[in-house]
Amino acid sequence: MKCVLSDLQTKHYPESFLVNGIKQENPEKPDRIDVLLRGAQQADLEVVSPPDYGIEAIAKIHTPEYLEFLQNAYSRWQRIPDAAPEITPNIHPTNRDGVYPASVVAQAGYHMSDASAPITAETWESAKLSAWSAIYASDLVIEDDEISYALCRPPGHHAGADIAGGFCYLNNSAIAAQNLLKKFGSVAILDVDLHHGNGTQSIFYHRNDVFTVSLHADPIRFYPFFWGHSSERGEGAGLGYNLNLPLPRGTSDEGFLKTLDKALDRITSFGPEALVIALGLDAYEGDPFAGLGVTTKGYELIGKTISERLNCPTVIVQEGGYLCDALGKNLTSFLTGIQ
Amino acid sequence: MKCVLSDLQTKHYPESFLVNGIKQENPEKPDRIDVLLRGAQQADLEVVSPPDYGIEAIAKIHTPEYLEFLQNAYSRWQRIPDAAPEITPNIHPTNRDGVYPASVVAQAGYHMSDASAPITAETWESAKLSAWSAIYASDLVIEDDEISYALCRPPGHHAGADIAGGFCYLNNSAIAAQNLLKKFGSVAILDVDLHHGNGTQSIFYHRNDVFTVSLHADPIRFYPFFWGHSSERGEGAGLGYNLNLPLPRGTSDEGFLKTLDKALDRITSFGPEALVIALGLDAYEGDPFAGLGVTTKGYELIGKTISERLNCPTVIVQEGGYLCDALGKNLTSFLTGIQ
Repeated sequence: MKCVLSDLQTKHYPESFLVNGIKQENPEKPDRIDVLLRGAQQADLEVVSPPDYGIEAIAKIHTPEYLEFLQNAYSRWQRIPDAAPEITPNIHPTNRDGVYPASVVAQAGYHMSDASAPITAETWESAKLSAWSAIYASDLVIEDDEISYALCRPPGHHAGADIAGGFCYLNNSAIAAQNLLKKFGSVAILDVDLHHGNGTQSIFYHRNDVFTVSLHADPIRFYPFFWGHSSERGEGAGLGYNLNLPLPRGTSDEGFLKTLDKALDRITSFGPEALVIALGLDAYEGDPFAGLGVTTKGYELIGKTISERLNCPTVIVQEGGYLCDALGKNLTSFLTGIQ
Repeated sequence: MKCVLSDLQTKHYPESFLVNGIKQENPEKPDRIDVLLRGAQQADLEVVSPPDYGIEAIAKIHTPEYLEFLQNAYSRWQRIPDAAPEITPNIHPTNRDGVYPASVVAQAGYHMSDASAPITAETWESAKLSAWSAIYASDLVIEDDEISYALCRPPGHHAGADIAGGFCYLNNSAIAAQNLLKKFGSVAILDVDLHHGNGTQSIFYHRNDVFTVSLHADPIRFYPFFWGHSSERGEGAGLGYNLNLPLPRGTSDEGFLKTLDKALDRITSFGPEALVIALGLDAYEGDPFAGLGVTTKGYELIGKTISERLNCPTVIVQEGGYLCDALGKNLTSFLTGIQ
């Protein structure tokens, strides 16, 4: 299996992260890449770099308004007297179909749903390369690799078509899934991150060619709060093509694997020609976000279960999972299980 | 003319105010009350206090979810370890019709559209009394006073049915208008604040018994950014019952009065039985928000023009206008003009 990664994905280094009104250190650090890379190498993956894909595949998922904002917002923000060094939003629309604002402050509120995805000078470059890694990993599967791994960082599953949030700017999993549709007739995205993949859900909410499934800590009292409830099932042509499986806080391997079985039952009923796994490793019992109780061994079982039950071309896209004792080992464990 | 005010409206004293990612001093200070009170007394108004109105008239405008949040959010927030001393939101929904979140952090994001209306221990008490002042002022007009003035602080016109923003928590102007409907068949709200009255607009957007008109600095590059554009005309039964008249930055008396004439033409065509004036004084040329160029003399002309052209029972509700050399004088001037 190949591990796709560009060194330049480390450049984005956000500092601010507003939690309960207090500025804290942002846990989505560049060091995550080093740790995850060692974890992938430990599972014998061969590391490759993505080629330059331009904007085309990214623009199939994200709006032109948003892509322009991501590319030019930082320099515009810097021209505001006494502005903060990173872009963080402070006013948000209640409806998204009104007049599109001209000022970068208002555009920030429109395009950023929370205060945990600040934009720095290097954000666009790193996010773009992270997306390219996802595209290349899906191209490898299109070119007949059975499975590939994209070490995407910054992560992507909280990013919607025109909105950043939760450390995410470009939705790498969605971009990979869309790219797979060049060859495959249908794709399922299985999101096992601790947090609901609200961006991914919203992108495909009205579609039936990409089936989105997410296992995550119950959002009733957990990020991203407003999305990830079991009542969200898709709309229009997409009704029935989105499945949310919220888990009680602290759920351990047994509970997680039992719910994973339900997810795999439903994916089997969809019969995808290809699979994207949105691989967050923050459901780990020792992750700083402390939401669920999956163990290092549990990740091997999760990988093994998926590969045994779904026998189709698979792209693994890295999502969350934060610096802690076993971050790298958890990746090794998952990759060992699924190979 | 009577000036309605409760001393306890001074208790709310917010500190935080996030501007371009930087915490600044909140300009909506209790001192505004002293200055405005002197301005009202200078115009020979008699000061009276509102009685206890309970929740009923407020609950005709604001949702039970929101009123419960405003009353209990602060104590819930204080129980979060290491939370900021005031409630400020950090995550916001993109849609408002999903599952209502259980955590106070998410409820804050749902019920607060920006970082300029922090909730303190005293917010509910002061906001409630500010609303009561508006109710009493409208009751005075119902009981045959031709005109009355509610010294509302905190202000209200940015507050929607279930959302705070822009220093506003309860929409005093909307509450007064709704109360007037007990006696009068139709009410117009004329908002002359520097900023668009987005909360008031949203509350009556689908209704045709209350006609909402707002003159304000063009929101394309000015707070509240997402609302106040001339294309917003009401919806459903309310289509045509909302009029926005955005003004170029720096507009002075002449331009303001010319546009006021258009507003009064349209109000005349609506033929209201009663009028609410949402009186922001921040269109003043020396206001710290520096958006428009109305002079102290201009306020007298604005008052005079309204009273000459619309001859109907009128409640004046204080909205914005911040500490500067002429805040009190501008109120005296307006009240002198309209009497």
